[in-house]
Amino acid sequence: MDDRGHDVAPAVETTADEIAAMEIRGAATIADAAAEALAIQAERSDADRPDAFERQLRAAAKTLYETRPTAVSLPNALRYVLAGMDGETVAELRASIVDRAEEFRRDLDRAQSKLGSVGANRLRDGDVVMTHCHSTDALACLEAAVEDGIEIEAIVKETRPRLQGHITAGQLREWGVPVTVIVDGAARRYLDRADHVLVGADSIAADGSVINKIGTSGLAVLARERGVPVTVAAQTIKLHPDTMTGHTVEIERRDEREVLDEEARAAITDGVDGTDDGLTAENPAFDVTPPRYVDAIVTEHGQFPPETIVTLMRELFGETVDEPWERSEITG
Amino acid sequence: MDDRGHDVAPAVETTADEIAAMEIRGAATIADAAAEALAIQAERSDADRPDAFERQLRAAAKTLYETRPTAVSLPNALRYVLAGMDGETVAELRASIVDRAEEFRRDLDRAQSKLGSVGANRLRDGDVVMTHCHSTDALACLEAAVEDGIEIEAIVKETRPRLQGHITAGQLREWGVPVTVIVDGAARRYLDRADHVLVGADSIAADGSVINKIGTSGLAVLARERGVPVTVAAQTIKLHPDTMTGHTVEIERRDEREVLDEEARAAITDGVDGTDDGLTAENPAFDVTPPRYVDAIVTEHGQFPPETIVTLMRELFGETVDEPWERSEITG
Amino acid sequence: MDDRGHDVAPAVETTADEIAAMEIRGAATIADAAAEALAIQAERSDADRPDAFERQLRAAAKTLYETRPTAVSLPNALRYVLAGMDGETVAELRASIVDRAEEFRRDLDRAQSKLGSVGANRLRDGDVVMTHCHSTDALACLEAAVEDGIEIEAIVKETRPRLQGHITAGQLREWGVPVTVIVDGAARRYLDRADHVLVGADSIAADGSVINKIGTSGLAVLARERGVPVTVAAQTIKLHPDTMTGHTVEIERRDEREVLDEEARAAITDGVDGTDDGLTAENPAFDVTPPRYVDAIVTEHGQFPPETIVTLMRELFGETVDEPWERSEITG
Amino acid sequence: MDDRGHDVAPAVETTADEIAAMEIRGAATIADAAAEALAIQAERSDADRPDAFERQLRAAAKTLYETRPTAVSLPNALRYVLAGMDGETVAELRASIVDRAEEFRRDLDRAQSKLGSVGANRLRDGDVVMTHCHSTDALACLEAAVEDGIEIEAIVKETRPRLQGHITAGQLREWGVPVTVIVDGAARRYLDRADHVLVGADSIAADGSVINKIGTSGLAVLARERGVPVTVAAQTIKLHPDTMTGHTVEIERRDEREVLDEEARAAITDGVDGTDDGLTAENPAFDVTPPRYVDAIVTEHGQFPPETIVTLMRELFGETVDEPWERSEITG
Amino acid sequence: MDDRGHDVAPAVETTADEIAAMEIRGAATIADAAAEALAIQAERSDADRPDAFERQLRAAAKTLYETRPTAVSLPNALRYVLAGMDGETVAELRASIVDRAEEFRRDLDRAQSKLGSVGANRLRDGDVVMTHCHSTDALACLEAAVEDGIEIEAIVKETRPRLQGHITAGQLREWGVPVTVIVDGAARRYLDRADHVLVGADSIAADGSVINKIGTSGLAVLARERGVPVTVAAQTIKLHPDTMTGHTVEIERRDEREVLDEEARAAITDGVDGTDDGLTAENPAFDVTPPRYVDAIVTEHGQFPPETIVTLMRELFGETVDEPWERSEITG
Amino acid sequence: MDDRGHDVAPAVETTADEIAAMEIRGAATIADAAAEALAIQAERSDADRPDAFERQLRAAAKTLYETRPTAVSLPNALRYVLAGMDGETVAELRASIVDRAEEFRRDLDRAQSKLGSVGANRLRDGDVVMTHCHSTDALACLEAAVEDGIEIEAIVKETRPRLQGHITAGQLREWGVPVTVIVDGAARRYLDRADHVLVGADSIAADGSVINKIGTSGLAVLARERGVPVTVAAQTIKLHPDTMTGHTVEIERRDEREVLDEEARAAITDGVDGTDDGLTAENPAFDVTPPRYVDAIVTEHGQFPPETIVTLMRELFGETVDEPWERSEITG
Repeated sequence: MDDRGHDVAPAVETTADEIAAMEIRGAATIADAAAEALAIQAERSDADRPDAFERQLRAAAKTLYETRPTAVSLPNALRYVLAGMDGETVAELRASIVDRAEEFRRDLDRAQSKLGSVGANRLRDGDVVMTHCHSTDALACLEAAVEDGIEIEAIVKETRPRLQGHITAGQLREWGVPVTVIVDGAARRYLDRADHVLVGADSIAADGSVINKIGTSGLAVLARERGVPVTVAAQTIKLHPDTMTGHTVEIERRDEREVLDEEARAAITDGVDGTDDGLTAENPAFDVTPPRYVDAIVTEHGQFPPETIVTLMRELFGETVDEPWERSEITG
Repeated sequence: MDDRGHDVAPAVETTADEIAAMEIRGAATIADAAAEALAIQAERSDADRPDAFERQLRAAAKTLYETRPTAVSLPNALRYVLAGMDGETVAELRASIVDRAEEFRRDLDRAQSKLGSVGANRLRDGDVVMTHCHSTDALACLEAAVEDGIEIEAIVKETRPRLQGHITAGQLREWGVPVTVIVDGAARRYLDRADHVLVGADSIAADGSVINKIGTSGLAVLARERGVPVTVAAQTIKLHPDTMTGHTVEIERRDEREVLDEEARAAITDGVDGTDDGLTAENPAFDVTPPRYVDAIVTEHGQFPPETIVTLMRELFGETVDEPWERSEITG
Repeated sequence: MDDRGHDVAPAVETTADEIAAMEIRGAATIADAAAEALAIQAERSDADRPDAFERQLRAAAKTLYETRPTAVSLPNALRYVLAGMDGETVAELRASIVDRAEEFRRDLDRAQSKLGSVGANRLRDGDVVMTHCHSTDALACLEAAVEDGIEIEAIVKETRPRLQGHITAGQLREWGVPVTVIVDGAARRYLDRADHVLVGADSIAADGSVINKIGTSGLAVLARERGVPVTVAAQTIKLHPDTMTGHTVEIERRDEREVLDEEARAAITDGVDGTDDGLTAENPAFDVTPPRYVDAIVTEHGQFPPETIVTLMRELFGETVDEPWERSEITG
Repeated sequence: MDDRGHDVAPAVETTADEIAAMEIRGAATIADAAAEALAIQAERSDADRPDAFERQLRAAAKTLYETRPTAVSLPNALRYVLAGMDGETVAELRASIVDRAEEFRRDLDRAQSKLGSVGANRLRDGDVVMTHCHSTDALACLEAAVEDGIEIEAIVKETRPRLQGHITAGQLREWGVPVTVIVDGAARRYLDRADHVLVGADSIAADGSVINKIGTSGLAVLARERGVPVTVAAQTIKLHPDTMTGHTVEIERRDEREVLDEEARAAITDGVDGTDDGLTAENPAFDVTPPRYVDAIVTEHGQFPPETIVTLMRELFGETVDEPWERSEITG
Repeated sequence: MDDRGHDVAPAVETTADEIAAMEIRGAATIADAAAEALAIQAERSDADRPDAFERQLRAAAKTLYETRPTAVSLPNALRYVLAGMDGETVAELRASIVDRAEEFRRDLDRAQSKLGSVGANRLRDGDVVMTHCHSTDALACLEAAVEDGIEIEAIVKETRPRLQGHITAGQLREWGVPVTVIVDGAARRYLDRADHVLVGADSIAADGSVINKIGTSGLAVLARERGVPVTVAAQTIKLHPDTMTGHTVEIERRDEREVLDEEARAAITDGVDGTDDGLTAENPAFDVTPPRYVDAIVTEHGQFPPETIVTLMRELFGETVDEPWERSEITG
Repeated sequence: MDDRGHDVAPAVETTADEIAAMEIRGAATIADAAAEALAIQAERSDADRPDAFERQLRAAAKTLYETRPTAVSLPNALRYVLAGMDGETVAELRASIVDRAEEFRRDLDRAQSKLGSVGANRLRDGDVVMTHCHSTDALACLEAAVEDGIEIEAIVKETRPRLQGHITAGQLREWGVPVTVIVDGAARRYLDRADHVLVGADSIAADGSVINKIGTSGLAVLARERGVPVTVAAQTIKLHPDTMTGHTVEIERRDEREVLDEEARAAITDGVDGTDDGLTAENPAFDVTPPRYVDAIVTEHGQFPPETIVTLMRELFGETVDEPWERSEITG
């Protein structure tokens, strides 16, 4: 029973806990777990009346939603599944949720490979692709290209502070793609050798802005200046429907020690004062790339210029402002 | 006696060795040592005829020049001192060289502080300055500003691979300047807070291009896109007269392990193969910033738009193509 | 009875007269009055056959349309209401029109506050907003922000020739927003302090162009150059469906004395000749801002990049070329 | 009977042969012939069962498709007609195909004049229009303008290598439009006199890129630099649905003798060697203009910013990846 | 006797008072008066020794300089005249100063007409010139063009807040030039009709920046965007030598009532509070146009790209940092 | 005896006639012939007094000048030689002219090879150079590169209307450089393969503008857009000193039949009317490239950013406005 007296299934609580503890992480994994949890809630519900069933489902969705409200794939999954709730009886409602969750999970399962195939179609034999950070969506494009027998090379930006470029490099080497690693500052120089910039996205806003790992927006500006097209690979669970109503995306700030560890700080302050107030390190996880520096957003529904992504958002999510898990409280 | 039978003073050989071994390093230090070495050569010369004296001096210059032909301040110092060689007798020639070397060294000694004062005049109370890498010329501007009582703050890019931004940060903290350290990829985001970008230069070409630490050209492009003026601080010993005749500047390539050390490489290749041929790391020391992205070059002779720096070069070095240490061989 | 023999209700004629005389003015007020007039026409119709009823309605629409064919909200309202005419009997037709008009007016009534809420979501505490002219849609965004407790400041361009910026300033002061008034020529200088440019629109074309008070397009270009995002606030009654078929928007030319009054003219011509033929003043009311200088158009349906506004137009108005009030003549 | 044992009507084979031999050519003519061929196939089919009928139709479509897979209007016509195949009996299926083909051909027949009318609406009295190559869609806009009594002038780029600008010039002179012919290199200079650039399209990609006669992309960049809006006139049969899934458009390479004929080659190589290996001429038929240099795409459905053309594509063609003539093999 | 005990001639004091009281004003008038005053000082000096004479002259210069240190033509005049002081005896010194002052005044007298002739050469029959504010240097170009028989037209921006465009309009009408007056916000629209933008300068900095009436920098950005070249007309007394050493030019702030008079303020604040703290008006006199938006600076020495103006500065004023009137105190 | 009664040597008249008849042509050849003619005039002069000698020389210069006042190298040569006229006696004057002419011709003779060497230094092994039209200065750079053993390739624009690219192609093939010929419209596409754009100049203006074969300015804009640096190769005889005083360069208009020959015209007008008034062809020989699209101007004095070329002009030609052949009339 949750704090408002609704019966939320223990399995849902477990999933919620695991999301909160970041044991379940990654946009797709979270979305999948959330949809599955709603199906489980539906199956295990002991509600005897349709309205009670519906309240339980919305309560479960709310519980899940509140674990990581900034993980955009989570509300997208919940919203999609709840939108399918339909029926006159508890049995019908249950079936509709179970089916809808299954559909969502099946589509999600295929989304990355469909997206990868679309992205691969943009590449040609001999192309050199510059990457930033580590994105499984971007890698799916390169994997599909490799599987299609397209010979590509990669220039991998190391992506400080966490050097996730190394993960990208490792994956590409496993697939046999020749890799050149460079520091982030070398991007402009090596763009002269690149035919594409390919990055993922943390989320995508209704105005076509791409929120992605810090450094993406600078790379995109430089790519435009050097005449290299920029492709963003992102499943539609990365679309951020809140932004349709003007909301801006909150940028996560991470531990400044990722930028400046104890040792480096001590060296700068000469060891005198480990907490030198005049010395700070800023560590935002993401930045915002305006749509005019992006050439195409590749999704499992095909590719789109960033300016039209709002049309896809409206198609998938409608104009609804209120979250569906809020709604039942209003009308229940 | 050098390999062409000229008597080069042992002290000159010592200086040459120290420059070659990089015990003497830094553009100004090298230039100073080279000028001093020519003065010592002049003082200690046992030549009994003017032409022999002159040959010795040019031989000494050649010996010095060949230690690090790519360090642009070295030929500039030699060229300047030899240009002052004047007289009918050995005594007169000797005196002219000694005086000229002294003049060069005195001007050099003052150059950084004069340049710093010019650079500081560009700053105003409350300005936030973004820096890249570590440059004593750029720091001289900030030091002069601090001494003038101008309140400034600094955003310091860490500057991978060698993190020389930390040296800059340490120096600025010593002067009490508040410092924010960021990773290189965060530059575009923090340019919104910056009033100036201030960098040094490894050398400056006749077309107004600035050769400086890798990452400078990308920073300059982003600064223009964000509307932040870019100032380059560079003493005139950094001007590269060879470029007046169209020569391009050779970019030093450094050890790739600065970018990807053994451990990182092993992690990427999964330890299987420490010398994975498909995995390379590129580590150029510098890049080239076109003049259209630079607002002002600050020197000890005042500030200049980059497009006019060639006028200053011609004023200081003339149109001469042949190096003066070559010339004696031709005419001697 | 209008000039084609149809019975147009006297109340409709009155509304038409008031629109023509500009007693009813402002895009929303006109649209509301037009929809209400159609409802009245439906209620008061003495038609005894469906086709006669329909002809009367179309005649009423035509009468209203012709009062101010350049006021884009007027045909939009008429087109929307007529599109809902549906039924087999006069009674059914009447009810459909009345309901549809009511729906239109209700949505219209809420449009500005919904739009304001979307626009406010784009703002953050401490933001400085630069405005041009006076727009109730733009002000609705700022009002919503103030109501949400967001601390904002405004830089208000006075907007010659009619100084409507003063009306904006007065409204903002009433809400407690700190205001700085500047002359129009000072915009570029003060954009360095602004986080947003926010303007309204007279109308919006299918190619994403924004037709708004003279000076808007220059401001938008400068905002892009200075890196400040441009938001246009416009209810969808401002969309201009004619432009979907390539039509350009006629720009109203106002009295040149607004620019150069008698006294100023006399001073320039030295009083000799009050009608100096070589001296003219141009006074276009609007200019056209290309979509590439606009970041977002905020409507009651959410925000859109200007390039996708045509999608919204098609959704709301379809591809129809002929006006519905023309159509009945063809088919009737 | 085709190679897979299906009965394809001889008339379809004839049409296929004529398309292959380029006796039927031009995007609209091919599309029209293909739709007609499917109708004939439907009418003449001797299939006695619905599934046999369907297989025949798909086989006919495949036969037609394979004649010129790069002519984008061909699959668009086939896909549109097959999408209308509907019914339980052979008679019903036949009727549906015949009707659908007729509808397609009727719309196609009107498309150019509807498009021309939209394009003409963008023009005003006194406008000077610069054209490139020869496009009947672009000319349809100018013809409609002339018919509407709009006074226009044309600056016609000759468009090497095939000088198709001369065809455009001849057509415009016939309509009485004053024409100035210039060499392609003179475009930037004469853009100062032009109010519009108007070109056609070979095909249009999902990312808004325009594939058109070599020289179009350079003209578009120069037009933007000179402040002249660029309009592309293209019926929707030119949209390239494959590109929605990331496919790039293959650019046809034509005979190099169009660029360098025998005589010119001999003059360059001094007659010594007619097949000088160090001398080549490149002759791509088309180039790719990025959407950011195009202001509007004019179609028979109205005008669109290039970034939203993907929305129109999805509306007309859906997200389908598999070609319908392939599908029957899978499900048949 | 001034406050340091030097004898400054009463006539010099009078001139100084008149400059301070702005009875003598305008860059050229001030420079002329200052040079004349030094000549008078030289003529009337009762010094009996060269060093005393020199001290008197420098004291007179200092007295003059301090009346309006921000009027850049004043120190330029003083510096130029003092630079010509040469001789062994008081008589020789006196003569040198008198001659030098005369030379300066003669050149100054011709400067505007020479400059006007250079500027006129940039114009052609039928050209339309857009102006901003009122500048006698800019007008000199147009006057010379009229005298050369070149038919020109002018689009005159009114230039709020002081509407000095009206003075420009009046002068041009006197010369018979057709004038169109527009509000400042209409500039972008009317740039499509303009062949040139022509403005004056308050001063010009060593980095090529042009300091001129507020609105100039915005106009220059728009002119670049619209493809219209920007010419700045400025005598060399407008060059600002301090900026060679990095100094920035202080921007004068004028009375805010020029922007918002009592009546307008009362209307905005609804009369409640005449000193509403939340309502301010900013009124900077000038703004700064970066050199990249200026095509040519026209002076009496010919035309220059803004980036090379520093070369002209160095030619005219050398690298001297200390003001000559300071120097005598140091060395005297 | 010329029309003002001065004795101009018959040989000078002959040279003048040959220049006028374009038997002597090409910038360098004309300049050489003009300098030689002045030397001959000096040698053959029968003047018995210095002032008569001087008048004769100026008359000869005037005669030569008037043959082709738009050929900029002609007045440059005359001005340079006359500037060296120095002496008290006719013998001295004669010698000074003869020496000066010799010096000019010797420098001129070496200028192209010195310039070529500077230009070659900008190239590196493997570089691909795109050329426009035919320029011996540009070719001198490529020849020097070939001689230095630098492996280069060329993309040669054919350069309508006169296809002078074929001459360039022939010359490059002779030197063994691989050549790809393209139509002018293909430039943007092939810039992706080019490392440099290299063109010559007809003349260069004081504002840094490059006047060169029609098509150059468009190519330069596209090269900037594609990130390819633009080098202009031009001996200093191409500098246009008149432009220092604001004069614009008159653009030659050539026979329109070069663009549209009789046959093409007949085809367009359908043979009906060979002189169709509504059909014209424009054929300007040159266009004007603004300095901001040029990276470097390569001369025999080294390379320069276009913005500083005015400094070189002033160094070589001073500020003189009056032509020296006019001056003698004033002072004679």
